[in-house]
Amino acid sequence: MKANRVQVEVVTIGDEILIGQIVDTNSAWMATELNKCGFELAQITSIHDDEKHIIDSLNLALERADIVLFTGGIGPTNDDITKQTLAKFFNTKLVFDEAVSQNIEQLFVNRPTLVLNELTRAQAMVPEHCTVIQNLVGTAPITWFEKAGKVIVSMPGVPYEMKQAMSLEIIPRLQNFFKTPVLLHKTVQVYGYPESALALKIADWENQLPKYISLAYLPNSGIIKLRLSGLLDDMLALEFSINQQVDKLSQLLGDAIVAYEDVSIQNLVGDLLKEKGLMVATAESCTGGNIAHEFTLIPGSSEFFKGSIVAYANEIKTNVLQVSTESLTQYGAVSQSVVEQMAEGVRKLLKADIAVATSGIAGPAGGALEKPVGTVWIAVSSAEVTLSREFRFGSLREQNILRATQAALLMLKEII
Amino acid sequence: MKANRVQVEVVTIGDEILIGQIVDTNSAWMATELNKCGFELAQITSIHDDEKHIIDSLNLALERADIVLFTGGIGPTNDDITKQTLAKFFNTKLVFDEAVSQNIEQLFVNRPTLVLNELTRAQAMVPEHCTVIQNLVGTAPITWFEKAGKVIVSMPGVPYEMKQAMSLEIIPRLQNFFKTPVLLHKTVQVYGYPESALALKIADWENQLPKYISLAYLPNSGIIKLRLSGLLDDMLALEFSINQQVDKLSQLLGDAIVAYEDVSIQNLVGDLLKEKGLMVATAESCTGGNIAHEFTLIPGSSEFFKGSIVAYANEIKTNVLQVSTESLTQYGAVSQSVVEQMAEGVRKLLKADIAVATSGIAGPAGGALEKPVGTVWIAVSSAEVTLSREFRFGSLREQNILRATQAALLMLKEII
Repeated sequence: MKANRVQVEVVTIGDEILIGQIVDTNSAWMATELNKCGFELAQITSIHDDEKHIIDSLNLALERADIVLFTGGIGPTNDDITKQTLAKFFNTKLVFDEAVSQNIEQLFVNRPTLVLNELTRAQAMVPEHCTVIQNLVGTAPITWFEKAGKVIVSMPGVPYEMKQAMSLEIIPRLQNFFKTPVLLHKTVQVYGYPESALALKIADWENQLPKYISLAYLPNSGIIKLRLSGLLDDMLALEFSINQQVDKLSQLLGDAIVAYEDVSIQNLVGDLLKEKGLMVATAESCTGGNIAHEFTLIPGSSEFFKGSIVAYANEIKTNVLQVSTESLTQYGAVSQSVVEQMAEGVRKLLKADIAVATSGIAGPAGGALEKPVGTVWIAVSSAEVTLSREFRFGSLREQNILRATQAALLMLKEII
Repeated sequence: MKANRVQVEVVTIGDEILIGQIVDTNSAWMATELNKCGFELAQITSIHDDEKHIIDSLNLALERADIVLFTGGIGPTNDDITKQTLAKFFNTKLVFDEAVSQNIEQLFVNRPTLVLNELTRAQAMVPEHCTVIQNLVGTAPITWFEKAGKVIVSMPGVPYEMKQAMSLEIIPRLQNFFKTPVLLHKTVQVYGYPESALALKIADWENQLPKYISLAYLPNSGIIKLRLSGLLDDMLALEFSINQQVDKLSQLLGDAIVAYEDVSIQNLVGDLLKEKGLMVATAESCTGGNIAHEFTLIPGSSEFFKGSIVAYANEIKTNVLQVSTESLTQYGAVSQSVVEQMAEGVRKLLKADIAVATSGIAGPAGGALEKPVGTVWIAVSSAEVTLSREFRFGSLREQNILRATQAALLMLKEII
């Protein structure tokens, strides 16, 4: 049976998120780590540096959850009031902490360009009667409070300070405090189904899942990730059961399953290419360099990626990629003939083992009745074979570029 | 004086954020747009698809705010229950809506590969007694409720559907409903200063700003946007005052100001190129096609962008771009000589009027004492002149790619 997981709430304090200055990447990271360690994140709340709002949020969170994690609002400047507010909440006062002071001085020894000012020294004041955890990479200490079997932690909002504190101190202490079991996850990536069609297709399978396995649909530019999460005391039995369910799903969906792990398609393609010792090149019209960009975001991509010709103007298709002018005139740039010649052309020009080419109408302009916006031809070419396929995506430019990129990577994956 | 702004709370519904599968980029976008239009975001809350939690959050948000915006939880699958829950909250039932049904069918007409199934048809069921706003890019309708002078809206969580709905329908309707004063914004983009150094440099100017003008620092890959926001009854006086402050800032920062409006640098460059009737090409090593990608995200970019050679492998630099083998051997790929030849080579090969080239060490591997990770050479070449410059960015691969892209676009802008 599904165990009741320990409930966590994250409260981020500060203006940055609420005025749109930064994207809250901390919460996604914390959610992933907490989930992996068997905790369940029940709510994320972002609020301003406001005493009443902080206390209200804490009271509400304690009604629902076992753990409340505050991030941010503990810097040296005047607008940061979390520490004072928590001291008030716990009916205690701020006291000077020698260990924190030494930790801060140590940090400044190593960074002679920084100046140890009054504001920074004030960081060594902490609420009395709490557990202080040293912040080894910043001046704001982490404070840990316990109340009626529940835990409240206040930590910095700076991402690398937060991550260091969570990984090395807070999560291990929470696991110890709550004696949590470990979760098991398995992700299956499915291509070619809209979400609703996939839901219908696997409805019977979904309904027969044991109660201790839960399913999440996670759509992303044409691919839907199905994540199975299991929680059971007997880990071997759980592993066996999850694999059994994935086998059933595999029989049901066949080739629509493009990956059995939670990695990006460009990483999968990159790994396959390296494994087979193949070098890839791209010829991009409608994707405009985005396939190349996705490959080159991967560290070490020079081991499998040669380069790309972004042939946005038609004359580059003919002059550089050797597409025949006749084909361009007769069939248009968005055609099977042209995209196949682009793939072959770039493979030969850049001396690659395999190549992929895209040509399409990303929009908003350029559509016609026969070839509406969203029409994309994609070809993959190796020394042995050239394959091509027509796609019809939607009407939005950015979406079309992303979907064409995804589709091109999947066609590459098939042929490797 | 600063008026009391209408308070908004955003509630995101669904597992994706809480299990860490996606980063919540929606909220930052919504925060920015709401702020620009004179609303204040008081809290962001992320919760699961759980009826009690949704209703509790709505009740709490209505105690604090005038507007509650729900995103997500309205897809066609079983786990999505927001619509049903809102119908229950407002004591109403779900009824079939002909206009929504037609809108959905229209979406499917344009995408013949998709099948209109019963789950999708169920999207046409909406709560009775609410205002239905059509979702022109997805199947889930937007619903608008009013209660005691407050507004509750439920919209999709898919970013482009949410953005479309917010920009075209929800924000204009909210402005109309709450008769919000119109804010005046002016954005000045500054390049070349770390945030803390810029803050010191303009501290005196910032302190003398009138109370009705507020300032926000919005850093983004090497550029810091300074956004001045003013709120005053007399709009002409406000406009005059903001322009006066921008003039003072301009004298203070000089050439470090790269733009006086809130547009991306690639859009600025694109507009300049079109204005002067010039075509651009790129030769990209470390940026790996990202400059081309940024250009081609702009609708109509074929009017100023010819194409790109992504010369990731050195042999492409020599074989395709005609960089001399001697220069490569003598100075290395990341050098002034090579990057200048790349820019000249691509300009001639693609018959462009102007070209930009990048070569650098994005990391994590490939660094050396003399050329550490983050070293990037950028060259710009026209028929008359070739200019080049060395940059030292940081140690993170993705950041280096983004910063090199930004720097290349700024060098292009200077030379045009």
